[in-house]
Amino acid sequence: MRKLNIGLLGLGQIGTGVYSVLRAKHKLYQKELGVSFDLVKVADVRKERQRALRIPAGVFTTDAFEVIRDPKIDVIIELIGGTRVARKVVLEALRHGKHVVTANKALLAEFGDEVFGLAVRRRRMIAFEASVGGGIPVIKALREGLVANRIESIHSIINGTSNYILTRMTQDGLDFQVALKQAQAKGYAEADPTLDVEGIDAAHKLAILVRFAFGGKVRFKDIHCEGISEIRSEDIAFAEEFGYRIKLLAIAKASAAGIEARVQPTLLPKAHILANVNEAFNAVLLRGDEVGDVLFYGRGAGQRPTTSAIISDLTDIAKRMPGRLEDEMILLRGLRARLKVKNISSILSRYYLRFHVIDRPGVLAKISRVLGAHSISISDCVQKETSAGKIVPLILLTHHAHERDVRDAIRLIARLDVIRGKSQVIRIEGN
Amino acid sequence: MRKLNIGLLGLGQIGTGVYSVLRAKHKLYQKELGVSFDLVKVADVRKERQRALRIPAGVFTTDAFEVIRDPKIDVIIELIGGTRVARKVVLEALRHGKHVVTANKALLAEFGDEVFGLAVRRRRMIAFEASVGGGIPVIKALREGLVANRIESIHSIINGTSNYILTRMTQDGLDFQVALKQAQAKGYAEADPTLDVEGIDAAHKLAILVRFAFGGKVRFKDIHCEGISEIRSEDIAFAEEFGYRIKLLAIAKASAAGIEARVQPTLLPKAHILANVNEAFNAVLLRGDEVGDVLFYGRGAGQRPTTSAIISDLTDIAKRMPGRLEDEMILLRGLRARLKVKNISSILSRYYLRFHVIDRPGVLAKISRVLGAHSISISDCVQKETSAGKIVPLILLTHHAHERDVRDAIRLIARLDVIRGKSQVIRIEGN
Repeated sequence: MRKLNIGLLGLGQIGTGVYSVLRAKHKLYQKELGVSFDLVKVADVRKERQRALRIPAGVFTTDAFEVIRDPKIDVIIELIGGTRVARKVVLEALRHGKHVVTANKALLAEFGDEVFGLAVRRRRMIAFEASVGGGIPVIKALREGLVANRIESIHSIINGTSNYILTRMTQDGLDFQVALKQAQAKGYAEADPTLDVEGIDAAHKLAILVRFAFGGKVRFKDIHCEGISEIRSEDIAFAEEFGYRIKLLAIAKASAAGIEARVQPTLLPKAHILANVNEAFNAVLLRGDEVGDVLFYGRGAGQRPTTSAIISDLTDIAKRMPGRLEDEMILLRGLRARLKVKNISSILSRYYLRFHVIDRPGVLAKISRVLGAHSISISDCVQKETSAGKIVPLILLTHHAHERDVRDAIRLIARLDVIRGKSQVIRIEGN
Repeated sequence: MRKLNIGLLGLGQIGTGVYSVLRAKHKLYQKELGVSFDLVKVADVRKERQRALRIPAGVFTTDAFEVIRDPKIDVIIELIGGTRVARKVVLEALRHGKHVVTANKALLAEFGDEVFGLAVRRRRMIAFEASVGGGIPVIKALREGLVANRIESIHSIINGTSNYILTRMTQDGLDFQVALKQAQAKGYAEADPTLDVEGIDAAHKLAILVRFAFGGKVRFKDIHCEGISEIRSEDIAFAEEFGYRIKLLAIAKASAAGIEARVQPTLLPKAHILANVNEAFNAVLLRGDEVGDVLFYGRGAGQRPTTSAIISDLTDIAKRMPGRLEDEMILLRGLRARLKVKNISSILSRYYLRFHVIDRPGVLAKISRVLGAHSISISDCVQKETSAGKIVPLILLTHHAHERDVRDAIRLIARLDVIRGKSQVIRIEGN
């Protein structure tokens, strides 16, 4: 029987789940997988976690570095979160010859070059299935199941909080703030929801997907990031009228000119498979040159799904060590070149534009003149009827246009005397 | 660099795809995967395939057994299809110490005990990602990505032909026969469509999923199998009125009393994720005790998706050999117990019942009396209005009832003097 000596760092929600499952299913995994997952040391700064989880004396410590230095331990599971302590701990663990399993998307997105680079130099595995899409085995699919393919594009819903909020706004007609409060009440959103609703969490995950889908280093700051806090319920209603739903998508596309990588609210045709991923569910749609479109869908967060991914990683490590690390290194070494990520201003997209205008003759002419002068052509248009002279919404959908031109045009349109308030610009995908 | 010497058997559509991709991407896979996939021998009984694919002399042969006996070859890719020759070839290849990659679901479903049993005894790998869901890496997900889970249920659309036909019937209002002809014209259905439209192909794939999801031997004949050839366009229209779509599902559920395993046309609520899988796409929805619901979606057939799966299998074999086979054996050895599959008559389900009745007073009373006497209670009812005395459809949806009772009741109802023609019984899932 293979034996894996484990050090577990961090007993928050996920760490508690991992601890409990490894205890409860210890014999089951021995029998069915032929692996004995042995928790040698468990660390958390909160001393009271020991009693809460009835962790035996000698196993619990408040010092993560004591765990890392333990020569008996093969693998460190890092569930501390954040990038300050976690970065130190992960790098130090690799230096001490440990393999690392982590769910820390911020760490891998912001310090991926450093962490993966050290793993290669020290010839140690770093496994991170739990960092994207919770229990959905999408990292394994990218690295193994779809290995025959050149990945051409990624379209994904990888932030459950935002997807839950947009679902409530769409299905119940709620405003963003009300839907956010519901998400917080349900435990889907933090007290400070910035990381989720501003798209940063999704961008972290996208950085990881891009690295392994397109095979190269990624600078996190190269990923364009827009959140959903500016989406109004009227935008959702207008999108609906045109046959679209609004989703926060993390998108990446490969082309000869470079990679596109962005997190953005997006209009998707209602029949698109991602338009039908609701509530807190995640989904990753990959397009490979051989396989075509493949979608992976499931719960993208939560204690038990994340634990499922971590145990899958542990199993893989148990089966590769000792002596089976060369393949891992080949895959990671392939990631040395830096991917060229296009600036957002150079992309081509369709757009949803919403203006609040004074309802008087000639308004549409003024706006469309500016758009036309920037080579932006209109595919659909709706102006909501009210009594003349009032402020009304005007919605335009465009054909494909250059982002740079759209931004220039919107800046000029904002100065027109018929415009009131801030304009809305949302990109359209999927047709 | 790892080196894998390959013998390829069968140059039909899939074999041609594998041959071409292994040639075209040979250098790419060397560089990115660190594996050299070397086609040592290729066999097909049709001699003209050699010229069509420009296969070098010395590589091509018409004798599959010559390939199997070649001591240089590590892995046999079996793409002959069917169960007669393929069975002989696969067993003989294992006996000659070869690993085997196959896309042959009929072989693994009908002779799985024999084939997997011999693989364990000879300590050789048998890889079969391509046998279920084409290029969708669902076998890998079951065996590796979701390894932490007890699988509780499978709901899947794994026959693209039937799904294409049902999509045409649903979206275009076509009759079965017309939709079948379209599927044949598009190359989605064979001249003899029996294997696909009668659910046999889906049952083959389900047998493989069940073996690895629930961990045990499966007798193919224990899987209950109904196809779509009796589905009428009126059933699709009535289902729609009640808020359902009809899909051919392959379903399996684990319970203390045994496994349920069946292929059947099924009413699914329109909002169910599987109800929105259309055209020739496949999708497998798994429920794990840790991860919850996870769905895998993509093209379930075709040359390039299937080739993608086969190359993933080859890569896995390259990384495990030599000397890393013990894990594989542990997983396969775990499958020695025979799974207890429930007889269909003992399952519990909701039902859609459609009768053609003479439109006169008391008809509903007569039918519902029989149902009531069998403890079957009605949740929804529609009778289509016409002039009295004509034959009209009567549709009843039931609450959960025992299959045995439903069958008994239907038999009695068929004898009532108000009934004309054959009754329709379709199970309901998903709510």
